[in-house]
Amino acid sequence: MSQDNLSFVLEKPGSVKYEHRPIPKLTSPYDVRVNVKYTGICGSDVHYWVHGSIGPFVVKDPMVLGHESSGVIAEVGESVTSLKVGDKVAMEPGIPCRRCVRCKDGKYNLCLHMAFAATPPFDGTLAKYYVLPEDFCYKLPESMSLEEGALMEPLSVGVHVVRQAGVKPGQSVIVFGAGPIGLVCCAVAKAYGANKIICIDINEERLAFARKYAATDIMVAEKIPAQEMAEKIIQKFDLGLGADVGIDATGAEPCIQTAIHAVRAGATYVQAGMGKSDITFPIGAMGSKELTVKGSFRYESGDYHTAVGLVSSGRVSVKELITSQVKFTDAEKAFQDVKASKGIKILIQGVEE
Amino acid sequence: MSQDNLSFVLEKPGSVKYEHRPIPKLTSPYDVRVNVKYTGICGSDVHYWVHGSIGPFVVKDPMVLGHESSGVIAEVGESVTSLKVGDKVAMEPGIPCRRCVRCKDGKYNLCLHMAFAATPPFDGTLAKYYVLPEDFCYKLPESMSLEEGALMEPLSVGVHVVRQAGVKPGQSVIVFGAGPIGLVCCAVAKAYGANKIICIDINEERLAFARKYAATDIMVAEKIPAQEMAEKIIQKFDLGLGADVGIDATGAEPCIQTAIHAVRAGATYVQAGMGKSDITFPIGAMGSKELTVKGSFRYESGDYHTAVGLVSSGRVSVKELITSQVKFTDAEKAFQDVKASKGIKILIQGVEE
Amino acid sequence: MSQDNLSFVLEKPGSVKYEHRPIPKLTSPYDVRVNVKYTGICGSDVHYWVHGSIGPFVVKDPMVLGHESSGVIAEVGESVTSLKVGDKVAMEPGIPCRRCVRCKDGKYNLCLHMAFAATPPFDGTLAKYYVLPEDFCYKLPESMSLEEGALMEPLSVGVHVVRQAGVKPGQSVIVFGAGPIGLVCCAVAKAYGANKIICIDINEERLAFARKYAATDIMVAEKIPAQEMAEKIIQKFDLGLGADVGIDATGAEPCIQTAIHAVRAGATYVQAGMGKSDITFPIGAMGSKELTVKGSFRYESGDYHTAVGLVSSGRVSVKELITSQVKFTDAEKAFQDVKASKGIKILIQGVEE
Amino acid sequence: MSQDNLSFVLEKPGSVKYEHRPIPKLTSPYDVRVNVKYTGICGSDVHYWVHGSIGPFVVKDPMVLGHESSGVIAEVGESVTSLKVGDKVAMEPGIPCRRCVRCKDGKYNLCLHMAFAATPPFDGTLAKYYVLPEDFCYKLPESMSLEEGALMEPLSVGVHVVRQAGVKPGQSVIVFGAGPIGLVCCAVAKAYGANKIICIDINEERLAFARKYAATDIMVAEKIPAQEMAEKIIQKFDLGLGADVGIDATGAEPCIQTAIHAVRAGATYVQAGMGKSDITFPIGAMGSKELTVKGSFRYESGDYHTAVGLVSSGRVSVKELITSQVKFTDAEKAFQDVKASKGIKILIQGVEE
Repeated sequence: MSQDNLSFVLEKPGSVKYEHRPIPKLTSPYDVRVNVKYTGICGSDVHYWVHGSIGPFVVKDPMVLGHESSGVIAEVGESVTSLKVGDKVAMEPGIPCRRCVRCKDGKYNLCLHMAFAATPPFDGTLAKYYVLPEDFCYKLPESMSLEEGALMEPLSVGVHVVRQAGVKPGQSVIVFGAGPIGLVCCAVAKAYGANKIICIDINEERLAFARKYAATDIMVAEKIPAQEMAEKIIQKFDLGLGADVGIDATGAEPCIQTAIHAVRAGATYVQAGMGKSDITFPIGAMGSKELTVKGSFRYESGDYHTAVGLVSSGRVSVKELITSQVKFTDAEKAFQDVKASKGIKILIQGVEE
Repeated sequence: MSQDNLSFVLEKPGSVKYEHRPIPKLTSPYDVRVNVKYTGICGSDVHYWVHGSIGPFVVKDPMVLGHESSGVIAEVGESVTSLKVGDKVAMEPGIPCRRCVRCKDGKYNLCLHMAFAATPPFDGTLAKYYVLPEDFCYKLPESMSLEEGALMEPLSVGVHVVRQAGVKPGQSVIVFGAGPIGLVCCAVAKAYGANKIICIDINEERLAFARKYAATDIMVAEKIPAQEMAEKIIQKFDLGLGADVGIDATGAEPCIQTAIHAVRAGATYVQAGMGKSDITFPIGAMGSKELTVKGSFRYESGDYHTAVGLVSSGRVSVKELITSQVKFTDAEKAFQDVKASKGIKILIQGVEE
Repeated sequence: MSQDNLSFVLEKPGSVKYEHRPIPKLTSPYDVRVNVKYTGICGSDVHYWVHGSIGPFVVKDPMVLGHESSGVIAEVGESVTSLKVGDKVAMEPGIPCRRCVRCKDGKYNLCLHMAFAATPPFDGTLAKYYVLPEDFCYKLPESMSLEEGALMEPLSVGVHVVRQAGVKPGQSVIVFGAGPIGLVCCAVAKAYGANKIICIDINEERLAFARKYAATDIMVAEKIPAQEMAEKIIQKFDLGLGADVGIDATGAEPCIQTAIHAVRAGATYVQAGMGKSDITFPIGAMGSKELTVKGSFRYESGDYHTAVGLVSSGRVSVKELITSQVKFTDAEKAFQDVKASKGIKILIQGVEE
Repeated sequence: MSQDNLSFVLEKPGSVKYEHRPIPKLTSPYDVRVNVKYTGICGSDVHYWVHGSIGPFVVKDPMVLGHESSGVIAEVGESVTSLKVGDKVAMEPGIPCRRCVRCKDGKYNLCLHMAFAATPPFDGTLAKYYVLPEDFCYKLPESMSLEEGALMEPLSVGVHVVRQAGVKPGQSVIVFGAGPIGLVCCAVAKAYGANKIICIDINEERLAFARKYAATDIMVAEKIPAQEMAEKIIQKFDLGLGADVGIDATGAEPCIQTAIHAVRAGATYVQAGMGKSDITFPIGAMGSKELTVKGSFRYESGDYHTAVGLVSSGRVSVKELITSQVKFTDAEKAFQDVKASKGIKILIQGVEE
């Protein structure tokens, strides 16, 4: 039965199963079929698994999970020119319509008709095969492994955040959160030339890793008013009138508030983490300091390319973020471990031949 | 006693008086002395008058009020080249240090050492004479009156807001608030080419004026949940996926929330109004739509120049915003009228000779 | 024979003919078939007609001419949602691949695989019917005529030039050339808020039209060294240290040189006209004034939309640019007139029913 | 006579001498007096020495040479807060007026009234003492030597060029010229994340150094047509449709032409080198590829700060650029060596106590 497309399917909240699905066909001469080799699990995957929905996105029909994948090209459409069977690739999992005004303006992450892997009703990448347009597959250079390739998804999130933040050499950046996204934000900010990268979290172990990995400074968040915490950060790290850039990768209200108070007049703040839909926000400080506050949604044109370049040129390392691997048939265990906050990034291997 | 500098002074909250102060001397060869002719009153002036403070700025010593002024050059320093005695000018009332990093970066509105008229401890412009560097005086063309000149201050606030918003020809803009700042935001957005300028307020009379003045569409704000109100605006004005730009000139929480929900993915939102320092803010919508949310603080290089150009070229009219004038000796009446929300903009005339 | 697709075909340099071609079929469910109603003729059309090539683009096989068109929707694909049969539209004549890095970056005008009407080997729009994707057809509001719709092509060129130039309210702009592109650049610069729009040409009649149409000032170019001519312009129009923006819509070497010398330090210059591939260029002035010098190639996302908005909102008028019309069967006459520089813009009517 | 200000003075072209001048006084409470310790020599210094002028700048009166300096604070004005006697600093040698529109716009390098060291009529830094405003002195961290401090001037030139070019991580950059400015451009481009930095020169020895120093690739320029040379570069380094960024640090016509042909559509080109005031320029390629071509003039706000940060954080090294040192009393020898193209950067030591 080597020809079938074994898939890891979410049936309903909390209930997953393996299905033998048909091998997907190319739908355009520009498509390729990828034999998926590694898939990382992120918080949103786990959220679907547990709750069956994220905000307005509700899993109504069984849906294949997973969207942080790498693989090997198994078939190419007749118009494909940049890839051939056997090429190792990182897979960008969201395909925009290419026709709406957002797409044509160069912001396809805001596409009105985005088909994103493992966002209902679109199946994800935790299957033997997955079909993508060639231009959403990024060939890995010889120097990069398929394991690293699977990490290009979270790294691209970090690239997008740091691009949104406009980090420039010499700047000081505060990153709230030392989870996978906070960590890649630190690493990318460093690669973009930030001189001070201060990581804040409540978990000392994570902070210790962040310090070793990419942050130049770390600090444990305290349960004190946001403005007071901000003052402490500024004092401790000699930030003068505040940091040049603030990034929140937690979604937690106190972190967001602290970040707004800890940046200087004219600074940029980027919201990378997702949390409550409404929070108490220091709008007065935003106004009087004339801050630029930005959302950061997935990744846009160039982010994956940049991510691969950052790793292949040695500016960012992602290997140490991979804390364990499980076989495809043990995928549910990976979800349990992520839910239990075990390790940083767990990879699920591809279907065994 | 024609040589003295009669001034309108706030002694303590609620208590004002006239003082005969010495005529101010030029402190640099680049300074000019202006015989102040008209001064508009804005909400912040009234706030100091009533409360004696705005946020961290507390009036400790008696302070001359007023900062929206125009006048006639009465004396020029020896290095002044662009102005001569008798020239009519609009007066930009905040003098930055020109040395800090914000100043040199081209954002002098964020200067760390700003000396702003009628912001403690700096005296304001409600006096016979006021000294300014020549480059903060903007010569009015023949076609413009001194009354219009006094309006360059609020108009520059509007220019700055619209520049922060990056309004481009063809865009749709929602402006919350039909007070003086909301009105100039509408007018400047129109001058920058916006095709739809939708003004929202709770006051139908103000809205009627806004419609006549610069808004292409108006709507009365309703007491319904922000997301619902946003839907109504989008439907009513056929905004598709939302407006290109949102501007709040009220500082009111429901307006801010509605604006965030009423703009499209990738839109820009600017906070022009000041209200509570902390509000409930729809950060989830900001993130998933990847909005750019900006403060707007006073005005930066070029804003006054642009404001004068907008009026002199006929793109913006400010005359109709002036609803009444009072004599210098009746200044307190103007404060009472602004406090009572009478009229749009009240001008206090200069000291009579 | 009303069903056939009568087309105006360039056989070889100087030789045109009418052909009864098959009615084109939709190639995608997002396509529409347009019944072409008006087509303007531009210099590049005439250049192909006379020379059979423009730079690297050589007409090898018979090619339908024309690319500045408007029409009425005659058929819609099954996925089309924004248009219906009978809608009047302006037709954007270049279809990008939507897949290359330039397209995804939001610069589809630089697409590596662009299929542009009447650029070999792609047929143009001088036919009864033409097929386009729906998102390259711009519905004309009731207030706009199909004749105006045909002018959206050159107007979009002007919009793109002015966007490249970053024209802002209050700025001074020098436009070299009072031909169709120079004229629309003047009009768009005005709509973007420029206060001074100085048009320079060698033809006094064209200049007189430019003055009436959109320029605030005009000047006849003189045969004197470029730097001297630049000084004259600066003096005459009181430009201080030079204009904020320079635009060349001639491609002529002396104009380009003069423009570079006539702008201020930090100014932007845009090359809108095409002429010789290599010219003598004042690179020293560009360097010491730290100018930004830009090409401007066709139009990118948003330009057509903006063009339609400028006309429908009354900010730009294009009617007066149309100096004559000819029947479809007299198309060659239009080419002869454009070649002879008769009028500003000549429209060829659609095939008569 | 330890109190006097020994200075190295250009009397007339080719003729220098030492003068005992009075110690300069602080002219503002924000000034500091620096005991100059190291001064690098650049091509412009030598040009004044040999020719007595650069373009419109003519040495009419004896002028102290030198502008690439570091030193130790010897005296501080009463308002100085950021520096104290004994601090080691890099000295930014051009003081803008802080009042003109360019200064206030944040582009003080384009100041209309710039006082730049060793640009007539302003004396340079080759003296025992030099007075500067505190905000134009950049305190060196403990980890940086005064020799490195003197290199902050050319490094800031490189920072400005790369900022003008907008180099982003992952991009490919071609730098023409392996002299001091070309080399720092390579180093800064690398620090800004460029993945390919291709250095082109005619001198193989310089190229070998560039390769070791910062370029990822090098190539000897050939005497072939520019377009052909561009093709060769693109082929050799697998640049696809061309490089993302082109920088010329030679001022040589063939290099400029080659660079324009070697970059991709939509690329940015920066003119860093100064040569002839007029050259033959491929304007057609600039237009059809819609390039952005920029001058780069000295350095603006933030460049020196960034330069110091790049070195102190270890992202850029400048030590290896210093090929020799001479005593203050042997300054003329340094000029002779630079004229003879000996070494990369020669430092003149400060006046011995």
